[in-house]
Amino acid sequence: MKNIDNTFMSFDKSYHEAKIVYFGCPFDGTASFKKGALLGPEEIRTASFGLETYSPYLKMDLEDDTKIIDVGDLNLQVMSLDDVLNEIKSFTQNILTDNKVPFMVGGEHLVTLPVAEAVFEKYPDLQVIHLDAHMDLRNDYEGDKLSHATVMRRIYDLVGPKRIYQFGIRSGTKEEFNFSDKYCIPNLFNLEKMADLTSQIGEKPIYVTIDLDVLDPSIFSGTGTQEPGGITFNEMIEGIKNLKGLNIVGADIVELAPNLDLSGVSTACACKVVRELALIISDNLRGYING
Amino acid sequence: MKNIDNTFMSFDKSYHEAKIVYFGCPFDGTASFKKGALLGPEEIRTASFGLETYSPYLKMDLEDDTKIIDVGDLNLQVMSLDDVLNEIKSFTQNILTDNKVPFMVGGEHLVTLPVAEAVFEKYPDLQVIHLDAHMDLRNDYEGDKLSHATVMRRIYDLVGPKRIYQFGIRSGTKEEFNFSDKYCIPNLFNLEKMADLTSQIGEKPIYVTIDLDVLDPSIFSGTGTQEPGGITFNEMIEGIKNLKGLNIVGADIVELAPNLDLSGVSTACACKVVRELALIISDNLRGYING
Amino acid sequence: MKNIDNTFMSFDKSYHEAKIVYFGCPFDGTASFKKGALLGPEEIRTASFGLETYSPYLKMDLEDDTKIIDVGDLNLQVMSLDDVLNEIKSFTQNILTDNKVPFMVGGEHLVTLPVAEAVFEKYPDLQVIHLDAHMDLRNDYEGDKLSHATVMRRIYDLVGPKRIYQFGIRSGTKEEFNFSDKYCIPNLFNLEKMADLTSQIGEKPIYVTIDLDVLDPSIFSGTGTQEPGGITFNEMIEGIKNLKGLNIVGADIVELAPNLDLSGVSTACACKVVRELALIISDNLRGYING
Amino acid sequence: MKNIDNTFMSFDKSYHEAKIVYFGCPFDGTASFKKGALLGPEEIRTASFGLETYSPYLKMDLEDDTKIIDVGDLNLQVMSLDDVLNEIKSFTQNILTDNKVPFMVGGEHLVTLPVAEAVFEKYPDLQVIHLDAHMDLRNDYEGDKLSHATVMRRIYDLVGPKRIYQFGIRSGTKEEFNFSDKYCIPNLFNLEKMADLTSQIGEKPIYVTIDLDVLDPSIFSGTGTQEPGGITFNEMIEGIKNLKGLNIVGADIVELAPNLDLSGVSTACACKVVRELALIISDNLRGYING
Amino acid sequence: MKNIDNTFMSFDKSYHEAKIVYFGCPFDGTASFKKGALLGPEEIRTASFGLETYSPYLKMDLEDDTKIIDVGDLNLQVMSLDDVLNEIKSFTQNILTDNKVPFMVGGEHLVTLPVAEAVFEKYPDLQVIHLDAHMDLRNDYEGDKLSHATVMRRIYDLVGPKRIYQFGIRSGTKEEFNFSDKYCIPNLFNLEKMADLTSQIGEKPIYVTIDLDVLDPSIFSGTGTQEPGGITFNEMIEGIKNLKGLNIVGADIVELAPNLDLSGVSTACACKVVRELALIISDNLRGYING
Amino acid sequence: MKNIDNTFMSFDKSYHEAKIVYFGCPFDGTASFKKGALLGPEEIRTASFGLETYSPYLKMDLEDDTKIIDVGDLNLQVMSLDDVLNEIKSFTQNILTDNKVPFMVGGEHLVTLPVAEAVFEKYPDLQVIHLDAHMDLRNDYEGDKLSHATVMRRIYDLVGPKRIYQFGIRSGTKEEFNFSDKYCIPNLFNLEKMADLTSQIGEKPIYVTIDLDVLDPSIFSGTGTQEPGGITFNEMIEGIKNLKGLNIVGADIVELAPNLDLSGVSTACACKVVRELALIISDNLRGYING
Repeated sequence: MKNIDNTFMSFDKSYHEAKIVYFGCPFDGTASFKKGALLGPEEIRTASFGLETYSPYLKMDLEDDTKIIDVGDLNLQVMSLDDVLNEIKSFTQNILTDNKVPFMVGGEHLVTLPVAEAVFEKYPDLQVIHLDAHMDLRNDYEGDKLSHATVMRRIYDLVGPKRIYQFGIRSGTKEEFNFSDKYCIPNLFNLEKMADLTSQIGEKPIYVTIDLDVLDPSIFSGTGTQEPGGITFNEMIEGIKNLKGLNIVGADIVELAPNLDLSGVSTACACKVVRELALIISDNLRGYING
Repeated sequence: MKNIDNTFMSFDKSYHEAKIVYFGCPFDGTASFKKGALLGPEEIRTASFGLETYSPYLKMDLEDDTKIIDVGDLNLQVMSLDDVLNEIKSFTQNILTDNKVPFMVGGEHLVTLPVAEAVFEKYPDLQVIHLDAHMDLRNDYEGDKLSHATVMRRIYDLVGPKRIYQFGIRSGTKEEFNFSDKYCIPNLFNLEKMADLTSQIGEKPIYVTIDLDVLDPSIFSGTGTQEPGGITFNEMIEGIKNLKGLNIVGADIVELAPNLDLSGVSTACACKVVRELALIISDNLRGYING
Repeated sequence: MKNIDNTFMSFDKSYHEAKIVYFGCPFDGTASFKKGALLGPEEIRTASFGLETYSPYLKMDLEDDTKIIDVGDLNLQVMSLDDVLNEIKSFTQNILTDNKVPFMVGGEHLVTLPVAEAVFEKYPDLQVIHLDAHMDLRNDYEGDKLSHATVMRRIYDLVGPKRIYQFGIRSGTKEEFNFSDKYCIPNLFNLEKMADLTSQIGEKPIYVTIDLDVLDPSIFSGTGTQEPGGITFNEMIEGIKNLKGLNIVGADIVELAPNLDLSGVSTACACKVVRELALIISDNLRGYING
Repeated sequence: MKNIDNTFMSFDKSYHEAKIVYFGCPFDGTASFKKGALLGPEEIRTASFGLETYSPYLKMDLEDDTKIIDVGDLNLQVMSLDDVLNEIKSFTQNILTDNKVPFMVGGEHLVTLPVAEAVFEKYPDLQVIHLDAHMDLRNDYEGDKLSHATVMRRIYDLVGPKRIYQFGIRSGTKEEFNFSDKYCIPNLFNLEKMADLTSQIGEKPIYVTIDLDVLDPSIFSGTGTQEPGGITFNEMIEGIKNLKGLNIVGADIVELAPNLDLSGVSTACACKVVRELALIISDNLRGYING
Repeated sequence: MKNIDNTFMSFDKSYHEAKIVYFGCPFDGTASFKKGALLGPEEIRTASFGLETYSPYLKMDLEDDTKIIDVGDLNLQVMSLDDVLNEIKSFTQNILTDNKVPFMVGGEHLVTLPVAEAVFEKYPDLQVIHLDAHMDLRNDYEGDKLSHATVMRRIYDLVGPKRIYQFGIRSGTKEEFNFSDKYCIPNLFNLEKMADLTSQIGEKPIYVTIDLDVLDPSIFSGTGTQEPGGITFNEMIEGIKNLKGLNIVGADIVELAPNLDLSGVSTACACKVVRELALIISDNLRGYING
Repeated sequence: MKNIDNTFMSFDKSYHEAKIVYFGCPFDGTASFKKGALLGPEEIRTASFGLETYSPYLKMDLEDDTKIIDVGDLNLQVMSLDDVLNEIKSFTQNILTDNKVPFMVGGEHLVTLPVAEAVFEKYPDLQVIHLDAHMDLRNDYEGDKLSHATVMRRIYDLVGPKRIYQFGIRSGTKEEFNFSDKYCIPNLFNLEKMADLTSQIGEKPIYVTIDLDVLDPSIFSGTGTQEPGGITFNEMIEGIKNLKGLNIVGADIVELAPNLDLSGVSTACACKVVRELALIISDNLRGYING
């Protein structure tokens, strides 16, 4: 692990006490241009101290209502891609072995793959909730099977058909949209259908991956591939509220490149998404295994 | 007063003729970081000349439908905080003595306090309409009783319970939200309930304070503490339209830090809010004391 | 023509084969301040390669569903205004003579005038659909009859009363709003009434001019005169979908100044508007003369 | 002429009284990329008010020791190149007819040509002092005979061999360096040989043209073509001091693009060069015709 | 005192042990425009950790060769100017009472005044070494006797004629240059004559004040009033080396506005000046009272 | 190799014909903060087309006087550090086997190591000329033996004592300066002693490594660790001229981070250094093995 000066605000429980383990994967090695996602985890921690611990949306407070430890960042620089993925996967496996929930912050979207792999190995009936502007369902991208643009296809290879619930998607090739129609559960342009998740998924274990570029670039320009036509921040909050009661066994947020938005607004969004997600998972945990 | 090169566009009546006195309080002394609110009044004046005088929202025109003088800015630099507040208060008292409506542009939110004090002394049954992203109801902030983060609490100390109508609030401590529930009239996240103001307040005298950070940072990033999840500019316009007919005896807009948004969009928003507010107050005045 | 390195993505048909001719008018000579619209055409081409060819909104693909050639930019620098307008007009006339649809990308809004003139000469019953933040109906602007602020008035002089359908307008003088009420068909603030266009216009020939500043500056700050209170990108897409089936015989998008939005989001918006407009016009063409 | 808000500081004599006429040529139409030189004249005027009127280098004061009028800028937008050049030339001719010295501020370097033409017509034995990073001696540039890259060649065509004294040059083609060796008087890299000008030129009439990119980009990055290895600001001052006593009958400074150096340092340099040049020409005039 | 996170690198001795007391005066209240000098002290501390402790210029090391404590910053915000000056003066008096050398970092230049006053009271034969781009010898500035533009005149009022050795000056009014000629010891444009200081001043007590804008803006653009024609960083180092052996009883550096130079180079310069000055004063102290 | 759109200007010979092979190592994996050196090679190529092929300093022309091929960049992303170094070394070995001179452009300084290793294996009596602001002679940096801060120590391990000629150094620990005194040939602060290189080294084979941060940050701010007090661009040119006649068998320039200097001046410097170095090596080659 790399040393960090601060944890995310209030993610300061002991490892023993914690039910959720928050960790960073500062990696953007397959990003083709407009890099910077590797700076995300550190910026989010620093900016979190401008945040209130209380969420008026959920009427919960990080101080009172969560048991989370921020263990810092994995050291992923100057390594082969295989080593990067293995490092993340084995780190996640340890968290799962200790019966804690992994909550990862990227980094580019490819870092979701090894986390999801480890979670899937423990929960073979895993369902995946995927918020994103992009399909990420290409079979390969410029010849590479492992890329930010193929990550959901690789996860599909793992979990199989009709297990990936996609929301907010507004960009992809015709082939990707066709693939999603056939093998995933696509919900384009917005998050409205997240209201149906409870009835669709029930108590099955769930992995949530949020590519923050699902947000409209008016509020979230700090990302490598900006796609106008995205959701508002309030729609994101509504979406997260619809996760209430679900059996979330792993989660991540990815693709903040803070260097691309010097105003700091993108990072502020990311911080609040982390807060809300941490609160909702903590709340859900009370009804499930870790509660 | 400091010399100014220009008035706000069309705020060019004589003092005698004017029914509304517009003045700037360029002060950001208690701002903890990301300063710049002291640059607000001057930038708004300069940018106002890019504005049309006609409002298609209200179908009124600054040229024809207002009688306002922009008297310039108070000189508030290198003074003790007590002197700053006294200077603003006594200046406001003079305006009120002359039976004109004070319309102040900040500066950080603390400058609202002395204006509201002067107005309250003249109108003891004063109601306060408060648009903001933040509660600003802390009893003290890092030990200080007088701060941008405590300003509404100090105003509460003045006017007492159930007099402060809050709109658009989306950030604060748990204690602030509880305090507001008990002693104020909180309306979180949006301005929808402003439609009820006429029936709630009737003809009682009203002070309107607009912390511009109530706007979403997608459109208003030029402020010290950006809170995603705010209102759109159109919702702001709708809110202002809902002030129609109310007995507004004082008003302010605060917390534009133009240096934090080099695109100029935040300042453009502030200019239009000034225009709409000036038009609606002018219209209301016809039915009240100054008309 | 100026040499260009690339065409807009997929606008690569031969002139013979093409049904739509896309060309740039890099000109911002009458812009009073905040120049940069002359950089628009080149930036849009470059950024188009970050776009997918497939539109999930229209379920069409530039590769399969359009026949467009991008012929590059007219060379309009260091010329008298008369020569600029003549050059554009005669270039458009050639396109029309060859029975192809001109699709122009500006440049400031004045470049719409010569294109519309040429189209009007061929289609004397031309209707004009005008999306904009501004009326652009002044009779003259600081003494000039030919200006970005007068362009729609000049087009009115051409086509006559009740032929210009205006959408999204939110800024202008009182006189302009009155003029529009009397002689145009104004729809303020949003594009909702575009749903009625089919029934209003039927099969009459239509020119579509989109001043991109109709978009809210939260998503489109890269333009010379930013007007808060604009439409969202999704509302723009809905508006374009409402053009389905109309007999569009000419079109343009204008007023992207990419230098004013370094984040690249404004240019990304422009690229998608070009894609959607190209697809909808191509689709419509199948039912009309060029199909 | 375009209206200007301010003159350059202290250039406020009446036309009758003035011995030097300062005017701006805001034009950058032949600049290939990195435009902005047309913003130079206005920025220099505004920034001049941050300057002291007293020069410790020359121990003279603009207030006491000059008689200059700043008449504003020529309006050169949206004109053919021929019209631009004719406009500048005839304006300069008027100044010369009134027996005043033209002092022009650009704009790109091509605007020097018409000023030099007018001056040459009055003074057929004109010598030219040329400070620049670039030779500007190409016979044509991408096919154009009239360009910022050919301007000194065109002036050569006018004045003939061994009349152009070049200083500070550090960039050009091999052909340009050969041409200069043969037909001009080149002094590369620095201004040291300006000390010999008095003995070389004597009392012959002189035109001074200063392309500010002769300064090193460490101090002057606000120009379209930056060439490391330039002179320091103090070397520029020494160079100007070496103009003492010469019979300067016309002068210009060109190629400040203030938008390319947001720190303002380049503009500050330009202001001081104007001040020093104005003082030295004024001093010289006492010994010549206009004194 | 305000809390600080870090001291300047290696300024970490105990107060008892320290011979030099380093403290910040974050104040820019009289700055007319381009503010930011109040951010100087904090930025210098943070950036100091990118510095080596060893100086190859002096062949000394902060770790081994200095005994300095950085006690943090005075809290000078929202105070009257009188209180600001009194606070600084009385703080400096305490340091002097404890027989330590005050080393202050500003802030705008006016903060030098109270430090110099306290030092002068202890050392009535005080000589002042003044490095600056500006004379700062106005009797008043826009009516104010106390200003960054009058600070050296106020110090002159204190110490009397021929006590202020000025170096690097290149801007001022004619009156200021005349005043300096008569009552100070001016050395314009560069620091060369600092080599004579030892012979001129001998063992008399000396206060050194360095307005960092004496550096050329090519290397130091992070200051409110940039004056091209300044000294290089190496000339600054040479100047400081010429202080060797002098009896320095107080010192300051002022006028870094780090927000005006986002590249960080200006702050890097300031850090190195602090290091060199700390080393030279420490070295000198061995020969004088505190050694 | 990664695809590149362009070669460096005029480096367009065939591999067979070329005597010098220019290649990029876009790697900054050990950079601690302020990354961006991996963007150097691409930016230098693009900017090279703003350069003239003729050097007035050397009176040679890239077109006529060099035989160089730019073969593009090695692909060094998402690899272990060992693989990065091996890749570079074996690539260099191939060039040397073909009896061509490797000319590498970084990247951070560590990429010099594998190139120097390969060259040393071919030329065991290799001498190293090292231009840099920093000693880079630490034995380890934060525990790592392989780092940009240790690269010259690793090369020392290879070539042994009194083989490394250092120039321009102005920063390091006391230990590094002592080590250099003992085991290298240090020339601090400037390049003046490069005039003695011919007599010192004679015809021995030489590797030249230029860390561009040897330049003063006034002209070269685009680098990770800026050190005021560096050399001017003209001193760099003089230094390179002093390489005339030497037997250079390998060379590199490193540490341009173009993202840290948006003005483009740093990249312009790098381009000219490449041009001058290419010309001088080409000229020297005529007298040695490859000529």
